[in-house]
Amino acid sequence: MDEHRTLWWDEASSVLCFIDQTALPGEVRFVRCDSVERLVDAIRRLEIRGAPALGVAGAYGVVLAAKARRDASGRDQEELQRRFQEEVDRLELARPTAVNLSWGVRRVLSRLEASGDPAAAFESALREAHAIARKDGEICERIGDHGAALIPDGSTVMTHCNAGALACTRWGTALGVVRSAVRQGKLVKVIACETRPLLQGSRLTAWELVRDRIDVSVVPDSSAAFLMRRGEVDLVIVGADRITRGAVFNKIGTYMHAVCARHHHIPFYVAAPHSTFDRTGKEADVVIERRPAEEISWSGSRRVVPEGAGVINYAFDATPLNLVDALITEDGVIRPPFAHLSGCYDDDPYARR
Amino acid sequence: MDEHRTLWWDEASSVLCFIDQTALPGEVRFVRCDSVERLVDAIRRLEIRGAPALGVAGAYGVVLAAKARRDASGRDQEELQRRFQEEVDRLELARPTAVNLSWGVRRVLSRLEASGDPAAAFESALREAHAIARKDGEICERIGDHGAALIPDGSTVMTHCNAGALACTRWGTALGVVRSAVRQGKLVKVIACETRPLLQGSRLTAWELVRDRIDVSVVPDSSAAFLMRRGEVDLVIVGADRITRGAVFNKIGTYMHAVCARHHHIPFYVAAPHSTFDRTGKEADVVIERRPAEEISWSGSRRVVPEGAGVINYAFDATPLNLVDALITEDGVIRPPFAHLSGCYDDDPYARR
Repeated sequence: MDEHRTLWWDEASSVLCFIDQTALPGEVRFVRCDSVERLVDAIRRLEIRGAPALGVAGAYGVVLAAKARRDASGRDQEELQRRFQEEVDRLELARPTAVNLSWGVRRVLSRLEASGDPAAAFESALREAHAIARKDGEICERIGDHGAALIPDGSTVMTHCNAGALACTRWGTALGVVRSAVRQGKLVKVIACETRPLLQGSRLTAWELVRDRIDVSVVPDSSAAFLMRRGEVDLVIVGADRITRGAVFNKIGTYMHAVCARHHHIPFYVAAPHSTFDRTGKEADVVIERRPAEEISWSGSRRVVPEGAGVINYAFDATPLNLVDALITEDGVIRPPFAHLSGCYDDDPYARR
Repeated sequence: MDEHRTLWWDEASSVLCFIDQTALPGEVRFVRCDSVERLVDAIRRLEIRGAPALGVAGAYGVVLAAKARRDASGRDQEELQRRFQEEVDRLELARPTAVNLSWGVRRVLSRLEASGDPAAAFESALREAHAIARKDGEICERIGDHGAALIPDGSTVMTHCNAGALACTRWGTALGVVRSAVRQGKLVKVIACETRPLLQGSRLTAWELVRDRIDVSVVPDSSAAFLMRRGEVDLVIVGADRITRGAVFNKIGTYMHAVCARHHHIPFYVAAPHSTFDRTGKEADVVIERRPAEEISWSGSRRVVPEGAGVINYAFDATPLNLVDALITEDGVIRPPFAHLSGCYDDDPYARR
């Protein structure tokens, strides 16, 4: 079973290491990242993606900024502080929809503010980022183990995009549930929706599951409803980029699966850590990222949408909670009505334990 | 407005001419086809696709077979007849789901059987194929004009795959409705779902509409439901490859749009000629073509699904008629309950006039 890490800090050279997700499945390319500028680029280009992974990346990004400030010490302190703040701001805004990125950045920052000395600040940032990364793996396993109870032996699970080890630091959220069920000895097949336009389902989810010898078939997103109608799907599990009091924000296509699952009386589950919960935001306040038209209008080196046609490329959609049959968190399975969701909306989920 | 033909018979050289739809939108490549073998290849490779176009292609395919038999006369008549029958059989089975291909082939064959002389048989086949091709354009305009009454001025129409001039000989069925509404002076915008895996929405529908200066935006199939939820879709119109008494068979993804349209109380219309109706088939009897895994697992020259993962690639799905708000035919708009659908299931729709 997958214990491979997908994102980690290399102590020897003080750099952040990660698998470049844009190169999969053809190539497993490791990146050594030693600046916030490179990290922001990696996040924008989706070399790192997935809400929990973005949280950990945000945390280590502050460490990289703190390292730069430490190593530059002796120069104008005010200028250094201004540059540090600029880097942290750019990092936090690298992608707007997933709440975890901002959460990871702020969490480490809040530990830093107490510390005036740049060297000590770096050390405390690193300790906090390590804690977040370690917790991420533990949380995924707990999500997996709670969720596995919802997976009957012999079932076929449909998922969308990638909510696996690559989207976290290991194990995964939606795929963590699958992994835990398989570890418990259950027979589980996965239908991975390919997930247009960037094919995270084909490239990442199928790659992870093949590596773990879990039965996986890739289908076009548009065939999900028809497979439900044919009785070939027992349940749907997806991850989440942000969960407000009213809606789950996740990869575009999630909402369609939720509507179709409800139509076919198929359970629709969302697996996500508490760091994904946004206690203040309303659905209308959340910025849904629109990505470049080129992701739709080109296929490799071939133009497939003619000049003169528009393109609408939302990266995410919003699924109202009334279409969700359960939220699977590290603290357990929450069933509707989600009245006690308020308990999930603590400022600091880690502090609760 | 589009009066360009997409498939026609060249009298001077007795060959079938068509636009190679696989080369669009980058290149408008005309093919001159003078054998059934080449035509079967064109149909399998989707150089020609779309139910009504397949009907006309099937008709002219019999003409090509009759031409070969005529030009080979003097040789063993029994052998020639056997070869003719083989060619016609291969043509009829080139793709299994759309009923029109078989309909076009059989329609011309039925005119041939009366005629013993190969030269006379060729001439009568050609006359019948011409009649079918001419009728196809007229039928599309009638479908368009009937359907235009369902399009409010200023509306946004969502469509899937390509049910335009390229899928017929000109004008189109679903896009014929849009064209007729625009010709009546209505303002109409189109949202074209890209239509995985072969992107007929991006490559063909957007190309046709840009050429006609009709406002069109391409979206991933998976974003259709979310755009409905945002109130950005007023109605959905699709074509059909086969309509049985219980279900509409059309490009994979059609069913998902029908379920989501119903969920959002958005009208879902199917525009198709009577030649698409299958009076004998039940849903369970219809073979839904499964196409090669490579259409999903490769993107240009790049492998995007890893070795070891399965692929499920249905070309079509089935939408039960209870999700359809109206069928738009050349004889008018049929509303549910579709009790008088029996009237549509004549063996020979053309004979009714």
